[in-house]
Amino acid sequence: MIKGGRLTLPTDLDIVEETLDLMSQLDADAIRDCDGTLMPKELTEVKQKIYATYYTTRKDNDWALANPEEIQQEYLITDRHTATSETLTIHLMKGFHTQQLKVNDIDDPKEWWEVIDRTTGEVVSVDDWVYDSKKGDVTVKTIPFHVYTVSFLAFLIWDPVHMYNFITNDWKDAPHQMTFDVRQPKTQVYVKNKLRQFCIDNPHVDVIRFTTFFHQFTLTFDDQKREKFVEWFGYSASVSPYILREFEKWAGYKFRPEFIVDQGYHNSTFRVPSKEFKDFIEFQQIEVCKLAKELVDIVHSFNKEAMMFLGDHWIGTEPYGKYFDSIGLDAVVGSVGNGVTMRMISDIKGVKYTEGRFLPYFFPDVFTEGGDPIGEAKTNWLQARRAMLRSPLDRIGYGGYLKLALKWPGFIDTITNVIREFREIHDMTNQTKSYTAPFKVAILNSWGSIRRWMSNQVHHAIWYREIYSYVGVIECLSGMPIDVEFINFEDIKKGIDPEIKVIINAGAYGTSWSGYDAWIDEEIVTTIRKWVYEGGGFIGVGDATAYQHQGRFFQLSDVMGVDKEVGFTMSTDKYNTCNPNHFILDDINEDLDFGEGNPGVYATGEHYQVLAMDQKYAQLVVNEFGKGRSIYFAGLPYSPQNCRILLRALYFCAQEEANMKKYYVSNDNTEIAAFEEVKRVAVINNTQKPLQTDLYINNELKETLDLEAMEMRWIDVA
Amino acid sequence: MIKGGRLTLPTDLDIVEETLDLMSQLDADAIRDCDGTLMPKELTEVKQKIYATYYTTRKDNDWALANPEEIQQEYLITDRHTATSETLTIHLMKGFHTQQLKVNDIDDPKEWWEVIDRTTGEVVSVDDWVYDSKKGDVTVKTIPFHVYTVSFLAFLIWDPVHMYNFITNDWKDAPHQMTFDVRQPKTQVYVKNKLRQFCIDNPHVDVIRFTTFFHQFTLTFDDQKREKFVEWFGYSASVSPYILREFEKWAGYKFRPEFIVDQGYHNSTFRVPSKEFKDFIEFQQIEVCKLAKELVDIVHSFNKEAMMFLGDHWIGTEPYGKYFDSIGLDAVVGSVGNGVTMRMISDIKGVKYTEGRFLPYFFPDVFTEGGDPIGEAKTNWLQARRAMLRSPLDRIGYGGYLKLALKWPGFIDTITNVIREFREIHDMTNQTKSYTAPFKVAILNSWGSIRRWMSNQVHHAIWYREIYSYVGVIECLSGMPIDVEFINFEDIKKGIDPEIKVIINAGAYGTSWSGYDAWIDEEIVTTIRKWVYEGGGFIGVGDATAYQHQGRFFQLSDVMGVDKEVGFTMSTDKYNTCNPNHFILDDINEDLDFGEGNPGVYATGEHYQVLAMDQKYAQLVVNEFGKGRSIYFAGLPYSPQNCRILLRALYFCAQEEANMKKYYVSNDNTEIAAFEEVKRVAVINNTQKPLQTDLYINNELKETLDLEAMEMRWIDVA
Repeated sequence: MIKGGRLTLPTDLDIVEETLDLMSQLDADAIRDCDGTLMPKELTEVKQKIYATYYTTRKDNDWALANPEEIQQEYLITDRHTATSETLTIHLMKGFHTQQLKVNDIDDPKEWWEVIDRTTGEVVSVDDWVYDSKKGDVTVKTIPFHVYTVSFLAFLIWDPVHMYNFITNDWKDAPHQMTFDVRQPKTQVYVKNKLRQFCIDNPHVDVIRFTTFFHQFTLTFDDQKREKFVEWFGYSASVSPYILREFEKWAGYKFRPEFIVDQGYHNSTFRVPSKEFKDFIEFQQIEVCKLAKELVDIVHSFNKEAMMFLGDHWIGTEPYGKYFDSIGLDAVVGSVGNGVTMRMISDIKGVKYTEGRFLPYFFPDVFTEGGDPIGEAKTNWLQARRAMLRSPLDRIGYGGYLKLALKWPGFIDTITNVIREFREIHDMTNQTKSYTAPFKVAILNSWGSIRRWMSNQVHHAIWYREIYSYVGVIECLSGMPIDVEFINFEDIKKGIDPEIKVIINAGAYGTSWSGYDAWIDEEIVTTIRKWVYEGGGFIGVGDATAYQHQGRFFQLSDVMGVDKEVGFTMSTDKYNTCNPNHFILDDINEDLDFGEGNPGVYATGEHYQVLAMDQKYAQLVVNEFGKGRSIYFAGLPYSPQNCRILLRALYFCAQEEANMKKYYVSNDNTEIAAFEEVKRVAVINNTQKPLQTDLYINNELKETLDLEAMEMRWIDVA
Repeated sequence: MIKGGRLTLPTDLDIVEETLDLMSQLDADAIRDCDGTLMPKELTEVKQKIYATYYTTRKDNDWALANPEEIQQEYLITDRHTATSETLTIHLMKGFHTQQLKVNDIDDPKEWWEVIDRTTGEVVSVDDWVYDSKKGDVTVKTIPFHVYTVSFLAFLIWDPVHMYNFITNDWKDAPHQMTFDVRQPKTQVYVKNKLRQFCIDNPHVDVIRFTTFFHQFTLTFDDQKREKFVEWFGYSASVSPYILREFEKWAGYKFRPEFIVDQGYHNSTFRVPSKEFKDFIEFQQIEVCKLAKELVDIVHSFNKEAMMFLGDHWIGTEPYGKYFDSIGLDAVVGSVGNGVTMRMISDIKGVKYTEGRFLPYFFPDVFTEGGDPIGEAKTNWLQARRAMLRSPLDRIGYGGYLKLALKWPGFIDTITNVIREFREIHDMTNQTKSYTAPFKVAILNSWGSIRRWMSNQVHHAIWYREIYSYVGVIECLSGMPIDVEFINFEDIKKGIDPEIKVIINAGAYGTSWSGYDAWIDEEIVTTIRKWVYEGGGFIGVGDATAYQHQGRFFQLSDVMGVDKEVGFTMSTDKYNTCNPNHFILDDINEDLDFGEGNPGVYATGEHYQVLAMDQKYAQLVVNEFGKGRSIYFAGLPYSPQNCRILLRALYFCAQEEANMKKYYVSNDNTEIAAFEEVKRVAVINNTQKPLQTDLYINNELKETLDLEAMEMRWIDVA
């Protein structure tokens, strides 16, 4: 008998009875309002928990208008302008939307702005440019045919998420919600009082669901109200002269706009972060977490729970940073798009529980003719379930218009199964730890643990041609019986954790994920070489260890047994031939898939075996380096087959092949999770077709299982 | 009535009568011996010219053995070795073939060798390594887990081309031909005397065909007699302490092995050449051309002609260098693989005539079951013919075993047509200049004119996945009515020739062809920007102007209207939509072909039009920049259609669209060459199928032509 609860449903004014019926039918223990829906008064008396979405930084234009200097700010950079004579006039707001952003000319432009000659990289002296506040133009004394940008501060006079919803839903009359900066003195006092009053006024609310705290991720629109720039990890809208002066005191050096605008790349997470940007993130975490704690303390003082939505204004909280647990949150909730985004929530420490909002949203774009909400629910669950077996969420929920879901034939049945299986995982495992391989695996990049389950991601599990061949690595791992650490290059210098037996470096050239110039840091390369030589395992994917230097593109070409043809060695003969007979390809029956691949890679040295080739180049190479082993993948997009190849690769690199079948299923469309404390395993069919798989326990074939489509079978083991 | 002559045939001992018959039938005016064939005594009396292949550097082992210190030398670099403790022993000849190369320990290793720490790039002090000549090992005091190489001198004890022929033809008993260095004092005297004696002994020889002078391009074999490294432009085998000491005197600085081994890349032409390597090429040209002239003078003193084969030991002659014409050669001959290799010969100045050796070779690999010598002859001619119409060779010829050609049914008929058309070009045009567009086009790269028709080439028109998308540019141009200059970045600084109206930059990232860090040279970017802004045309192909700097990958992104996504701007929205309606795509009917393409390029700015896209990225973009125009191609492999697109692109960028149809044919599988002095045009069908094309003269439609397969139609125009 499976227990109920662990489930949050959305509701709305016009479906009170239906909500009550469905809560009963699905045994839901919480309900919530959403953007665009309201909590019906009739439901405020239910015994289940009630969540209230809470905004700290908007929905109070009176306050914003009364305190214009405490409106939130963002560092912007103009488009690049080529000087064609000895002066150049740049209209700052060109390409931005004047309804969203407004130049900050309250604070001295000469102190806070920067004009940069992008041909040389030099900052133009403040004596060589003037700002005309009436026209909104900067006029620069230029060198003809150099290229210039202006970095400047602007007020966020329309909250980006509100603007997004307004545009997306084609709202007409809603007033544009302005922003205010809770970090600033007056607003801080005001917002705290307002929160106290909300708690007083809403005794029926059990959970304050912060959406979120103080700083919106970067989301900027262009002059045609099209999205111009969106960076889910972006700190560009977390600035103000007030904050930057505090930063200067803390950091001990002068702030520069360039630390934020970063040549126009706005510190994309794909950029190797500068020391100054890392300092800024550290500073913001300290300050944001301190202030967030004060709000959470207010909530607690009213005996309510505080929940954080991992999105919108989450900047500075950094759930995997050093300060997050000091906030004292009860819970964190986020959207689950796949295994990785599930783990991004479920692995968070320092909260009492985690909640995942599952797909599909109950929105008209999916619940419509031609839409496939049932298919989406199944696919989403298949990818999330395997991750759930390794590190479960405590709760799940849905969002949007409940009415749409109720009307769609068969949809409630589908999610009933999802909810049942979700609860089964908790009940059957008795919340004990899932078995993991007897070694740890580390993902090595420039960010390390602060970006746990975030490497090679743009945002929200969205598919990009540039990333899917790398994201596959962590998507596969999210559902594998492997303890994964995310480490950065500084961690390498501090000494590699002895539990780590395999290090993975995966990503495109020049990015923070592959690491760029970290690979010409003598200490890093020698430390890893020595570690592999003495028995460690190394897996490179794509442009792993890449930096063109001293005759090699891959700096650990000796470790990996590969280098990449970048045009300089076409006259050097390569003798690669393919031999796919290898441990890591056993049980693999279909064509290998390296995604976009990485043309030009070839094996080199004396200890390699090429397992797969594309024309004359190598895609999959195994290499021995001293007592250690390495595997190179041209790419590793997510697929059940690639999960299996990666699993075998990890056991091979860790030299633990003999233990791989402790808990093992032969069919690569199935996986197994073992819970030793309760002496039970779950075998999952990751496809929507029935199939057969052999079950191994303690390296012995136990039985052959016939699994239904999507089945999760629990089996007791002695 | 077409005149005869202009034709060289090969012969051999066993086909005297057949040679005489064929010479008569084809009206050949020269015969030659080849590698593996001999000139029959009976033919030495013919009235036609007789060529004798002549080697200056080998076929005299007695001399080589008697003068071991004047054997040719090559700078080698060992494989990379990772130190795993505090000393490392490297066996120098590991991976090389001891029958080809022998360590030079006559000259002091500490003076001429270099041990380099490739982890840091630092040279290891000569005090920290020792050479054991008995074992052939260098032992280095190392930093553990750094990577080391040894650069050292070796004697070429087996001529690389002789070794190649020996291995390829599986010869058994032929003695390995050693080399000797004609640049060194004793050998120089000896070789000159030998040449005089040859001239005396062979009065029947009319033409000494040097194969070639002194320095073999780099061709190194591995320990399994496989080709290890071949660089047709390579100077690695043109060194010796004698030469390097002379170089030091000339250059005024100390020579370093690294100038030659270049991190192991051996100065591939794809590397941006260092100042020191360019100095070395300059020095070698001066010395090689001076000495070559002395040999040519000897030949002339016997009233014979001197011909140079552009291959084998051509290093240092640089036919497009400043010193080549000082040699005083009568002729140059080379192999014709396509239009580019044809122009590489026919454009050479400073000789009385040029000769092209056509394909196929009369060798058993092609003249065999499954071979298609007739097809090869036709394809070769189609690609060469269009180039011939722009800049004709003076002579053509064939090589190999004549007997094979005679036996193959239909083959002689095929080449009879080739020869007839070749002569027709000379006769119908009366050797007047082919019409070219009223503007010049420049190919801009790091090499410029010294590598005329050599850009983006590995060697011998061989297809490489990495280059075909760029080589197409010059292959197209080789047969187009366009005057092409090859310029380098220094030429830009000297001022752009006012006749040039379009500059093309084409190549892969980081290579000499795209230019790498030249694009952050302030003078270069501002000069080109200004020039385009004032009306110039710019065509970028592939990674044109690429260098990651100050927010851009393409440094002329403002001129070209494109930049490339390298991972840092995935959060920046691009709004590219495709609109193929444009002048440059008129008359284009089939799918566009960008070869390997260049994923990630997107249009940016305000003056672009995207003409072709691959998923969300741009492949063909037209941009306006001031009064100038630019076109970006993701790639441009050779095809008749791409020739036409490039032609239209050039006229568009030069803003000469109105003049494009001065001489024009509508069907893109046809081309036209006009000879205004003789009031005649040739229309060629570049396919092996009949087709129809409209003929335009002076922008007016004159007639519609029906052309046979491969036809070349001569038409008189008023």
